[in-house]
Amino acid sequence: MTRRLAIALVHHPVLDARRSIVTTAVTNLDVHDLARSARTYGVSDYFIVHPITAQRELVQRICDHWRDGAGGKRIPDRKLALELVRVVTSLADARDALGAPGDVEVWVTAARSVGTPVTLAEARARLEGDGRPVLLVFGTGWGLADEVILAADALLEPVRARDATGYNHLSVRAACAIVLDRLRGA
Amino acid sequence: MTRRLAIALVHHPVLDARRSIVTTAVTNLDVHDLARSARTYGVSDYFIVHPITAQRELVQRICDHWRDGAGGKRIPDRKLALELVRVVTSLADARDALGAPGDVEVWVTAARSVGTPVTLAEARARLEGDGRPVLLVFGTGWGLADEVILAADALLEPVRARDATGYNHLSVRAACAIVLDRLRGA
Repeated sequence: MTRRLAIALVHHPVLDARRSIVTTAVTNLDVHDLARSARTYGVSDYFIVHPITAQRELVQRICDHWRDGAGGKRIPDRKLALELVRVVTSLADARDALGAPGDVEVWVTAARSVGTPVTLAEARARLEGDGRPVLLVFGTGWGLADEVILAADALLEPVRARDATGYNHLSVRAACAIVLDRLRGA
Repeated sequence: MTRRLAIALVHHPVLDARRSIVTTAVTNLDVHDLARSARTYGVSDYFIVHPITAQRELVQRICDHWRDGAGGKRIPDRKLALELVRVVTSLADARDALGAPGDVEVWVTAARSVGTPVTLAEARARLEGDGRPVLLVFGTGWGLADEVILAADALLEPVRARDATGYNHLSVRAACAIVLDRLRGA
C-alpha cells in the first residue's frame, strides 16, 4: 500500500533567466517524456498546467493523436503513457482534481536552494503506507515562482551528484525522471 | 578517485519498433538533455554517434551555437554542458578517443532483457577507485542493436520501478538521467 502520487508540470508562474515571473510555451517532449516516466513509476495522473487556452488545446491535440488517433495505433505503449495526461488551467485545479484542499499534499521541487527542504529519502519514506494523495510539482523555465514554493506543503531537496560538480541545470525531463526514480525506483 | 566515465548516444545500429536495424535522426533535445545530465554527474565526454555526415554537421552547428555563438552568451550554463559533446561517426571512434581498444571498457544499456546484466549497484561500485575509462552507451529508437550489446564488456540492468508497473518505455533522455544518478548520484 502506497499513497497516490500525481505529478504536475507548471508553465505559469515560473521564472525566466532573470528571475522574472513568466509563462513558458509547451514543449512537445515534456508531454511525452514526463508521461512515460510517470507510467514507469506508477504515477496516477500527469497534470499539464497552462493558463493560455491555445496552449492547453495544443496539449490536448497531442494527447488525442496518441490516445485515439494514428499515433497510438503505431506505438501502443505511448498511448498508455499519454492516457495519464490531464490538461488544467492552474495548479489549484490540479489539486482540486485529486481531492478537497485539505485532503491533498502539494510537494514542490526546485533546483535552487529555498527554505528547508525534505530529503528525497525522507520523501520516499513518507509515500509509504496510507495517507493523503501527493501532487508533486515541477516547473518549466528557470523553475517555480517563489509563491508556488511558499504555498506548498513540502519542498523536496534538489537532485545532486555525489561528487560536487557545481552544476545543477538538469532539464525538467531529466529532473522528473530522477526524482521519480529516487521516490519509487527499485 | 573514480574512473573516467564517458557516455555515447548511438543513432546506428539501433532497432525500430519492428526490431529492424535502422539509423535514427538526431533529436535536438537529446543533444541538450544528455549534455546537461552528463555535466551534472561529472561525465567527461558525451559522444554523439551518427554515420551520416549531414546529421553530424547538424549536431556540430547546434553545439557551435551554444559554445561559441549567441546561445552560450544568453545561457552560459548551457555552454558548459554542450562543451562535453564530441561528434563521431561510429562507436569504435568514440572508444578510440578514450584510449587503445584494450584500455577502455564499453558498457551498454538496454530496456529489454538480453544476456546477463550487471546490476546498477554493482556498476556503481565498479566505477570507484582506479581503473580503465568506461564508455557508457545508450541507444536511440527502440534500443541498441544486438551486435552492439554482444560486443560490449558489460550490459547494465534495465531501470525498474520498485513496484512492477509492467511499463519500461522511458525516453532515452530520462533513462540516461536515471542511470547516471544511480551510478553517480548523492
